[in-house]
Amino acid sequence: MKRIITISREFGSGGREIGVEVGKRLNIPVYDKYIIEQVAENSGFGEEFVDSVLRHSGSHGFASSRRKNKINGVNVDDLLYNEESRIIEEYAEKESCVFVGRCADYILKDRDDVISIFIYADTDERMKRIDEVHPDKSKSAIKRIQEKDNKRAFNYQYYTGRKWRDPTNYDLMINSSSLGFDATVDYIVELFKKA
Amino acid sequence: MKRIITISREFGSGGREIGVEVGKRLNIPVYDKYIIEQVAENSGFGEEFVDSVLRHSGSHGFASSRRKNKINGVNVDDLLYNEESRIIEEYAEKESCVFVGRCADYILKDRDDVISIFIYADTDERMKRIDEVHPDKSKSAIKRIQEKDNKRAFNYQYYTGRKWRDPTNYDLMINSSSLGFDATVDYIVELFKKA
Repeated sequence: MKRIITISREFGSGGREIGVEVGKRLNIPVYDKYIIEQVAENSGFGEEFVDSVLRHSGSHGFASSRRKNKINGVNVDDLLYNEESRIIEEYAEKESCVFVGRCADYILKDRDDVISIFIYADTDERMKRIDEVHPDKSKSAIKRIQEKDNKRAFNYQYYTGRKWRDPTNYDLMINSSSLGFDATVDYIVELFKKA
Repeated sequence: MKRIITISREFGSGGREIGVEVGKRLNIPVYDKYIIEQVAENSGFGEEFVDSVLRHSGSHGFASSRRKNKINGVNVDDLLYNEESRIIEEYAEKESCVFVGRCADYILKDRDDVISIFIYADTDERMKRIDEVHPDKSKSAIKRIQEKDNKRAFNYQYYTGRKWRDPTNYDLMINSSSLGFDATVDYIVELFKKA
């Protein structure tokens, strides 16, 4: 049976890697950055620009982008988000797959074949993880966590009008540091098979 | 292996029944109202009074109780909550069991044998459920949900300083209307066995 899994995740929770592993185990596509490539290709904008607009980061950043990004009266935020939504809906329609991030839980909220999951973790574990994997040590792990979480929360609310960490938006919220990476993957795979 | 399960739950989510069923399946005690009976017995206060103080409901209600409930300078809230905490810790120390509500996730937060779970559900499903089971129809289901949720959130924050629906407090948050009652019970039972 066809099922769509959406994964939203805290920075450093391992949510992305969990999504990728779930996709591998189920042999279904995992969409993440690929969506950005598609939006860039279809819109003609550069990948980096598309990414920074859709995440409200970089020089287009955080809260001011709606005002800034107008080209001939067209709101570029809306334009890119609408194209992103269209692409996500198209992939969801086609076959079973996993979406990581990109407000996919919201974009696909009216479908009844979606399992929406939020992955979080204890701050200590997230810090440890970020220290392990992040090459740039100029910023502390806790600072990165705060900045990323704030951006994701802002971004999610900006596009969806919902609160990012609110259970209402999800079928399941898993603390990956309590359950562990493997058990979390196992559980999502089982859920997919049973649903 | 000994494991403690704590279940916090939204009103109408079926969280209590899920806790009871998990206890049955694992053949371990489920503590809920029984804690109140023990606090009443140990403190000498009546059960109804203990319950209303600890839930900030009834005439002792909501936000004003800290000021009201003083007897000879002793804060009755604190006294009863401390006794409740002591009892919960005592039971948790003894054997595997399930606690439903009572801020048990917070009271037992420093133990490493605890699986803390939050059960929630879609508002539509909660309303349907309440309409089915609640004998008194003088108040609408949505009104009951709002009142109960507000009280539980207030109460939880009053005693723990934490936000009730914040993922940080839990190992797992399950939407029982997405997963269904049986799958939710199954999953918690599996988690207990694997942990």
